[in-house]
Amino acid sequence: MLRLQGEMIRGGTSKCWIFGHHDVVATGVDADTLLLAAYNAADPRQIDGVGGASSTTSKAAIVQISAEPGIDVEYAFAQVGIGDERVEWTSNCGNCATAVALYAVHNGLVRITSDSTTVRMVNVNTGARLSGTIPTPGRTVTDEGTAAVPGTAALGVPVLLGFEDPAGSTTGRALPTGRTLDTLTGPTGPVEASLVDAGAPAALFEAKAFGLQGTEFLAEFAAAVPALTVLRRQAALAMGLAKENDPVSHAVPKVGVVARPSAYRTTDGTPVGQDEYDLAVRMVSMHAPHPAIGLTSAVALATAAATPGTLAHRVARQTADGTLRLGTPAGVITAQAVPAAEGASPTVLLHRAARRIVRAELLVPVLEGRPA
Amino acid sequence: MLRLQGEMIRGGTSKCWIFGHHDVVATGVDADTLLLAAYNAADPRQIDGVGGASSTTSKAAIVQISAEPGIDVEYAFAQVGIGDERVEWTSNCGNCATAVALYAVHNGLVRITSDSTTVRMVNVNTGARLSGTIPTPGRTVTDEGTAAVPGTAALGVPVLLGFEDPAGSTTGRALPTGRTLDTLTGPTGPVEASLVDAGAPAALFEAKAFGLQGTEFLAEFAAAVPALTVLRRQAALAMGLAKENDPVSHAVPKVGVVARPSAYRTTDGTPVGQDEYDLAVRMVSMHAPHPAIGLTSAVALATAAATPGTLAHRVARQTADGTLRLGTPAGVITAQAVPAAEGASPTVLLHRAARRIVRAELLVPVLEGRPA
Repeated sequence: MLRLQGEMIRGGTSKCWIFGHHDVVATGVDADTLLLAAYNAADPRQIDGVGGASSTTSKAAIVQISAEPGIDVEYAFAQVGIGDERVEWTSNCGNCATAVALYAVHNGLVRITSDSTTVRMVNVNTGARLSGTIPTPGRTVTDEGTAAVPGTAALGVPVLLGFEDPAGSTTGRALPTGRTLDTLTGPTGPVEASLVDAGAPAALFEAKAFGLQGTEFLAEFAAAVPALTVLRRQAALAMGLAKENDPVSHAVPKVGVVARPSAYRTTDGTPVGQDEYDLAVRMVSMHAPHPAIGLTSAVALATAAATPGTLAHRVARQTADGTLRLGTPAGVITAQAVPAAEGASPTVLLHRAARRIVRAELLVPVLEGRPA
Repeated sequence: MLRLQGEMIRGGTSKCWIFGHHDVVATGVDADTLLLAAYNAADPRQIDGVGGASSTTSKAAIVQISAEPGIDVEYAFAQVGIGDERVEWTSNCGNCATAVALYAVHNGLVRITSDSTTVRMVNVNTGARLSGTIPTPGRTVTDEGTAAVPGTAALGVPVLLGFEDPAGSTTGRALPTGRTLDTLTGPTGPVEASLVDAGAPAALFEAKAFGLQGTEFLAEFAAAVPALTVLRRQAALAMGLAKENDPVSHAVPKVGVVARPSAYRTTDGTPVGQDEYDLAVRMVSMHAPHPAIGLTSAVALATAAATPGTLAHRVARQTADGTLRLGTPAGVITAQAVPAAEGASPTVLLHRAARRIVRAELLVPVLEGRPA
């Protein structure tokens, strides 16, 4: 039985286990084997592991101090399989980045020099650069906080999360095909798509192409998930993220639908008026409707909505100050685009929260180099 | 933010957090408040807590050394709410008892004097007495084991779990109404029931009363859950477990259906022949089909099947040696009744497995004596 130190931290609406890179290396086992065993990924209920058996609770990040100038920490994000002995290392997760920032401040991976500490991060999966700014009043770290995010009533430490120069973070181009509109072939024929890369690669469709309003409850939106799963593969090929013979990724690109704002109710029943947000969105997480929205998807939407010719631009209410209020199943999430240095795309800022849930020693059943 | 030591241990097909009674008392907060906050019970996804958002992963036990002669440890079992700020303290859980036994051996709550250590336990919720026997080769404790149980491919330390004198453990009588058959009123009219109390109070019905075979997949059995939820309340009243004005319990009594054995497939697709088991059973856990069977329910079924006149006796294949092979959705679980001292009902033995998953410090958000 291997032993591994870790912290389970809620970042926004995800639970992420955060591990130190040196601790992972010290186990003598490769990270895939270690995570598959620690999470009991083989079991759809993950009953013998630390995973929560849902896409938002089967996540990990492996963190280390970075040698790169201007960067404090680098982290690898892992989406661990559920009833599937695979770890996806191909995407980034903004909620986990929030958790990584809190972990870095608590564990001395960054110096605290004032009442507010910014952790400068690189996600090694995608090369994305992020910043997480956390209050450190009196140069001390806290576990308490009263910040909230849509999708949970729980409170946490406020984290201002910034996606730095997000355009083209994976493929090098904000529009990987060079076009604002493409046509992909879904199970029922051709569908218009906007394929963008900002924060994460994302394939966006109009809700009405699936007979939807884009403001549906999760259970109703679920009907479109099989078609969007097929289209994810088509989009991956079109965006150069995968070749014909590559295994199918269930995480890349992000897929979802957009629509003009209209009045709807959140999952917990709260009414949201047509004027309270600028763009309706329903995203997919692995094989199920995302209960809110992935933050990297929010960055992709902010970029797409600001790009004339895309489906998101076609249906989004345009604002003067660079803010975009996204109407998600969990509530409204506001992304703010802030001008950056010349040559860089605008930084996208999101107000988030994080909370440490446990500090732990995991007992990981690895036998002969494989999950037991 | 309160701090609390705990261990997450898989017992059979459940994940249980085990806490020391002294540690719970030291927080200065009552156990209900502490668990509701630690598990984020208010949230249906338990996203800000250690709960797994399913009935088999939202369990806890609080353990201490017992002053009672012949007993090593006593434990209180808690079923923590999911999207429901309530903790149920009214039932026992055999899977958690398995975890408690492993915890007791690892944490010095019982002396290890030979190659096998028996932990004698009392469940303080119900007064049930149990034993857990664990290999301690060379008088050492191990985290490794190769024992398996139906419902998971994961391996663990073997635990032979014994329910001592289980009849009447909650109400004082194996048949709380004094009858082997009662008639309860369900949503569609009168239904025959056998109300027994052994291991746990249980209300058993014939599958055919709900138009079922008793060998259905979980999704098919789910159709009967609303009716069984109504009947659980009726059974609680008939068995003297609740009075008319008491709040409705979602845990007590256990409810489920029985049927004659017939060929079926387990949830993972494994075929089970008609001759491979003696009694088909589908139980309810809170508001959903139980993926396997609660162990206390297995004890109730073993007792009912051995009692002429009950519905379970009516449909169970009778065996000469006191074993009863239960055909559950997860596979076949064998209960063995062993004669006990005069005046006591037979001990029911079950072969189980447990594994420590994490040793942890929990950060629990309690503010002003309430979950934050």
